[in-house]
Amino acid sequence: MIVTVLLLLVALCARGGEAEERAAAPGAGHVSVVVVGGTGDLAKKYLWQGFFELYVQQVASGNSFSFYGGGLSPADVATPLLFDILKAVSCSKDASEERCALLRAQFLRLAQYRQLKTLEHYQALAEHIGRELQQEGIAEAGRLFYLSLPAFAYVDVADKINKSCRPTGGAWLRVVLEKPFGHDFRSAEVLATQLEDSLKDEEMYRIDHYLGKQVVAKILPFRVENKRFLDPIWNKHHIERVEIVMKETLDVKGRISFYDQYGVIRDVLQNHLTEVMTLLTMRLPTNVSSSEEVLQKKLRVFSSMLPLGKNQAVVGQYQAYQSTVQQEMNRTKDHVSLTPTYAAVLAHIDEAQYEGVPILMISGKMLDERVGYARILFKNDVFCLQSSDGVHCKPKQIVFYFGHGSLQYPAVLVSKNLFRPALTSAEWKEVTEHADVDILGLHISDYYVQTPTEQKEAYSELISHIFAGCKNNFVSAANLLASWGLWTPLLHSLAGTHPRVYPGGADNRDLLDIRVSGKDVGYTSEVVIISADQMGGPSANSFQVMQGNFRGGDMVSAWPEQLVERLAADMEAAAEAAVREGGVFHLALSGGSTPLALFHRLALHHFSFPWSHTHVWMADERCVPPTEAESNFRGVHDHLLQHVRIPYFNIHPMPVQLNQRLCVEEDRGAAQYDKEIRGSVLGSSFHFVLLGVGYDGHTASLFPGGRADGAAEGLAALTESPVKPHRRMSLTFGAINRARAVALLVMGKGKHELITQLSRVNDKPDKWPVTGVKPADGRLLWYIDYDALLG
Amino acid sequence: MIVTVLLLLVALCARGGEAEERAAAPGAGHVSVVVVGGTGDLAKKYLWQGFFELYVQQVASGNSFSFYGGGLSPADVATPLLFDILKAVSCSKDASEERCALLRAQFLRLAQYRQLKTLEHYQALAEHIGRELQQEGIAEAGRLFYLSLPAFAYVDVADKINKSCRPTGGAWLRVVLEKPFGHDFRSAEVLATQLEDSLKDEEMYRIDHYLGKQVVAKILPFRVENKRFLDPIWNKHHIERVEIVMKETLDVKGRISFYDQYGVIRDVLQNHLTEVMTLLTMRLPTNVSSSEEVLQKKLRVFSSMLPLGKNQAVVGQYQAYQSTVQQEMNRTKDHVSLTPTYAAVLAHIDEAQYEGVPILMISGKMLDERVGYARILFKNDVFCLQSSDGVHCKPKQIVFYFGHGSLQYPAVLVSKNLFRPALTSAEWKEVTEHADVDILGLHISDYYVQTPTEQKEAYSELISHIFAGCKNNFVSAANLLASWGLWTPLLHSLAGTHPRVYPGGADNRDLLDIRVSGKDVGYTSEVVIISADQMGGPSANSFQVMQGNFRGGDMVSAWPEQLVERLAADMEAAAEAAVREGGVFHLALSGGSTPLALFHRLALHHFSFPWSHTHVWMADERCVPPTEAESNFRGVHDHLLQHVRIPYFNIHPMPVQLNQRLCVEEDRGAAQYDKEIRGSVLGSSFHFVLLGVGYDGHTASLFPGGRADGAAEGLAALTESPVKPHRRMSLTFGAINRARAVALLVMGKGKHELITQLSRVNDKPDKWPVTGVKPADGRLLWYIDYDALLG
Repeated sequence: MIVTVLLLLVALCARGGEAEERAAAPGAGHVSVVVVGGTGDLAKKYLWQGFFELYVQQVASGNSFSFYGGGLSPADVATPLLFDILKAVSCSKDASEERCALLRAQFLRLAQYRQLKTLEHYQALAEHIGRELQQEGIAEAGRLFYLSLPAFAYVDVADKINKSCRPTGGAWLRVVLEKPFGHDFRSAEVLATQLEDSLKDEEMYRIDHYLGKQVVAKILPFRVENKRFLDPIWNKHHIERVEIVMKETLDVKGRISFYDQYGVIRDVLQNHLTEVMTLLTMRLPTNVSSSEEVLQKKLRVFSSMLPLGKNQAVVGQYQAYQSTVQQEMNRTKDHVSLTPTYAAVLAHIDEAQYEGVPILMISGKMLDERVGYARILFKNDVFCLQSSDGVHCKPKQIVFYFGHGSLQYPAVLVSKNLFRPALTSAEWKEVTEHADVDILGLHISDYYVQTPTEQKEAYSELISHIFAGCKNNFVSAANLLASWGLWTPLLHSLAGTHPRVYPGGADNRDLLDIRVSGKDVGYTSEVVIISADQMGGPSANSFQVMQGNFRGGDMVSAWPEQLVERLAADMEAAAEAAVREGGVFHLALSGGSTPLALFHRLALHHFSFPWSHTHVWMADERCVPPTEAESNFRGVHDHLLQHVRIPYFNIHPMPVQLNQRLCVEEDRGAAQYDKEIRGSVLGSSFHFVLLGVGYDGHTASLFPGGRADGAAEGLAALTESPVKPHRRMSLTFGAINRARAVALLVMGKGKHELITQLSRVNDKPDKWPVTGVKPADGRLLWYIDYDALLG
Repeated sequence: MIVTVLLLLVALCARGGEAEERAAAPGAGHVSVVVVGGTGDLAKKYLWQGFFELYVQQVASGNSFSFYGGGLSPADVATPLLFDILKAVSCSKDASEERCALLRAQFLRLAQYRQLKTLEHYQALAEHIGRELQQEGIAEAGRLFYLSLPAFAYVDVADKINKSCRPTGGAWLRVVLEKPFGHDFRSAEVLATQLEDSLKDEEMYRIDHYLGKQVVAKILPFRVENKRFLDPIWNKHHIERVEIVMKETLDVKGRISFYDQYGVIRDVLQNHLTEVMTLLTMRLPTNVSSSEEVLQKKLRVFSSMLPLGKNQAVVGQYQAYQSTVQQEMNRTKDHVSLTPTYAAVLAHIDEAQYEGVPILMISGKMLDERVGYARILFKNDVFCLQSSDGVHCKPKQIVFYFGHGSLQYPAVLVSKNLFRPALTSAEWKEVTEHADVDILGLHISDYYVQTPTEQKEAYSELISHIFAGCKNNFVSAANLLASWGLWTPLLHSLAGTHPRVYPGGADNRDLLDIRVSGKDVGYTSEVVIISADQMGGPSANSFQVMQGNFRGGDMVSAWPEQLVERLAADMEAAAEAAVREGGVFHLALSGGSTPLALFHRLALHHFSFPWSHTHVWMADERCVPPTEAESNFRGVHDHLLQHVRIPYFNIHPMPVQLNQRLCVEEDRGAAQYDKEIRGSVLGSSFHFVLLGVGYDGHTASLFPGGRADGAAEGLAALTESPVKPHRRMSLTFGAINRARAVALLVMGKGKHELITQLSRVNDKPDKWPVTGVKPADGRLLWYIDYDALLG
């Protein structure tokens, strides 16, 4: 039975301020809503209420509705269950009891349960809808399928919908899905591809219910409305840090079989917190309601993020979790689940605007309170001479308070010493009467507080967006995959990590507090070991370092991290000495992956390194354009030079590309480099040459079987590599052996065999080129990690 | 009368932990101490007490002493005054009353007053000393002259000492001076030169009594002793800011005739606070007790400091100051003194280690409390999940507390969440029992507190250093001049600035609070005008900008700052558009001084500028090596490229130096640049070319009378300038007029005549080269400031 009411359709996109530009009422007509899994928990708690609210909104519009609850059970079993749920829907406060009863009765009359198990069931539903439309003689506007189902069923149901339930005659099809959208990048990609077989991207509405929260939906409009205040301070010079936090008090009892496969990172951080993070940090789109532009700006955030690895996260698990796993999943006492129920992750965006600003994303179960917020804390730029009571002396922050916690209602809070935010729509109001409460270190009266005029459920909000066809607050496939692209490497690197066990609730005390140190994050308190480093104890390079001799040179050996620390320190000492002596330090570097850790160490820890007096040369180069990823210079550039302040003139890439071509003899690139060295480096004697050794014993780009005695040659030469790209340019032994110090860095188990051989063979540079490295008047220094040395 | 006691001389340098390496007792023997101005205030208050303490220390050593108070008055008048002072000296607590009386009596017996006015008086003194030495038959160790005199008398007295009082036979001469050492760089230099005529540098001890304060003297040793804790955090990544503060409650009554010429910056900041600043930020010397090395490291700090200008300071003057000036200096009611009695200055050290760390130096008279401290506040790197009560959640700071204030004693305080500082000498002890007091935002119990075992007067400390010949804690001429070099430009730029008037004491409330904004500092509260900018109001470029037409192009005109803001914004918009369209932005820049403000604006405010997709080209270049100050590229490099993260490959200096020579036709540099442009820039069409105009109408390096129509030529050419360096390389009109946008930036009154002419003349590129700038398919944009436009 279909009830038709004709009136103007309100453009629902406009709710929350993010009006998408679209015709107000395209395709008014009949709408069929199908909630697959219509008697499940989510449907019971939020969805039917949301659809009822939609119905109430639209009752005066040009649309008519029918509502179908679908499920695997036969109709006679499930129909009473469905109607019990439907009878419980409630009206908004401003509706009279009478009117509410009337609306609810209408709603119930429009609803029915249908078994949706086989393709035939879906076909029957489609036929039913077609019949009804024909009988009533009205046009169809669209069909909305809400899949409130376990994710494994999505592909099958989408296939059935595609095969049997597509509307005709230009009516729309919208299919709503909810996380989990896969388990990692790979599975999300598979799921996306499989769904694409049945559904077009614009037909899919992937729900992240956080995007339906009024305060989350307010983030972008807030940034736009207050642009003139925010523009000068929304950057690394003013932002101290960003915190995005969702704390829960509940445990996961009853959901273990799902939860144990996912854990808090997949459950909360990868989606909810990540969405908030992108909304906070994306560049403002010219048009906030253009979902395409918003998507592009979001994707740009993902592409600028520093990768997340083990050092960017801490994980925890509440104490009772193991026993719940054992009970609910029938595991034995010795089964150990490593699934984290708490995680704190430190992200960085590698763009000038946010460079170095720590972005913390934190969530957990069984914590001391239920609260969700995003806080932008600004740097303290004020010096108060006399007392710190004045409002201008207090912390400056903007808090997007999603709800719960000590405030108990959703709000945007701006500390009064920042600015008074604009109030541009009737849907938000300023709160001026407060309970006596502190919010994140400031008394509530120190904030300007805005709250929605009417609080709305996230699902109700999103359902009305779906109905209006506004895709802004949904997760596109590209966005989803970008997010998994960020999180998957972290999830992999955390595999096997034992989460810290916490008792739960207030008893956690400071057990889960974290400390940011540079780009890494860790727990503030050590539970197992009291490490001296924790309190600034002796740094690692004062122990665990072994010294000896190797092939006539000095050898330092240590675990990789200590080895790199030591090499970096030695290099800085050499630089300081050279600058003291002659005002300049000439450093020749090798490419490849081995020295990357060294480059990072130099860039992030050696602030006194005299870069402005350092000249950087290349030990060897591949004959590829210097901008390509394969280029040695490109590696040195991206991992070192871009991070230190070294003058342009002091950088000396090898001229492998001259006259728009690569390493052609006639272009005399090697001779040019030779000349450049002779012109700049006193006695052509580099102060420090950093080399590696290949599995075949090659060093720089001097390969076995090459013209190994370079004494007669120039300082640089073209050489041939047995592996691609074959063409290379290299310093010759002549140049290398003139250096004041040559360091050979060898790391990794894979080099153990080589090191063993090298320890035995005589100097045979044509067979083992590295044995030709014998500085005439300089020092030879081997830096070999324990893996390479000891296997 | 001379009392000789033979014992080992203790190396006094070691006191305070900074033992200078020197023989323990060189030249034990007789020491003559002459306090010129021996009955003055300073002598009365500190100096004689200091010399008495020296005597008590040395009474058991191999030295003997005589003490002379000198002055302009005849002996019969001044002798009783001197002895009244001497009788008042006190012993340390651990000396018995008997022993004290004995020591004091001995001290008095060794002392006498001498009139020291004319050269003859000094000669007589010298003869007297010589006679005594002969009579007693003992060797002379040295002569110590303490000039407790107004600075104007230094040169004359030094001359008299030099002429008549030099010891012979290898004994030392030490002359002690105290600030003011000049009034600015120039006068300090003159004074230094004049003193050099009479005294060798090593003979002069310039006192800054702050360096005698035990806590100040502890800074370097503390940094060394706690190096392992401090090394990882003593840098921009961890330090939030540095505050060096000296607050006084007193006014300057009775000293106005001196003070009014100096003011707080010369009186406190240039010396005391600057010394503390260098001790905090200098690189650690290998040997803390090497005064030469310490000096070198200090000088390095000065050479790395960003210049101080008007925007780096706020000044104030207490309300009663004017009337005191009128009274004490006999001025009329309408006399206005601009001398500041309060100043807050923001300094920055332009080194990787401290880049961006604000260093505040603050001092004033008539403030709410008397206190002096230096605080290193560290960034908050901890996230406390549950509550912020834990010690690790609190602010992290190190406070060098010079004395007074709420603590009431000198101390070094380290917040407990940092580390427990080493306790290496018996001269310092840890304080564990505290009064209930808050120090700079933390309760005293949240700190590790160290205090000197015995509190000593700064002057007594310094006197014993002088006696020991330790120059570490004195101000060398080089240090002094470097400091004046820093402060003099600020003093000049503040001349004519009206200080903010403050009532004095607690009534100042928040009137003197300051806000740091980028590299600038200002008062937090506006007194006269409520500026919209203060609360983030509409930025300046929304008004005061005029638009029009000029020579067929669009014209923007404004005051210089707004003009630059607008040009930077337009340039960023062009960059964004180009990157959106084709993924790359090709920008050609001119050199010279006009665009410097633009470069700074771009580097410091335009964080979203897509530098990683921008290629920078040069519009023209002088034929000088690119590292020379005259090079256009050098200017662009130093003022822009070094401050943004632009890939090395995107930078395209003109090849004016090929084959180790400059702009030789056969090297075909212009052709090479032409080729480079054609190879990289689509259609050889730059997105944005920034040009200036010379007084003669030249633009880029296209000069009047040059080959002006470049249509037939390549994109770059060698040209001749009428001024040195004559040889230039320039983009041709052919290249310029292919651009999508060409901006002509013209600023300054000096260009007004030119602009007037240009507004009238026809296109005559051979006479007025700039009239040849006519982009074929692009926009021509004139940016002319009001000075150039309106004269």
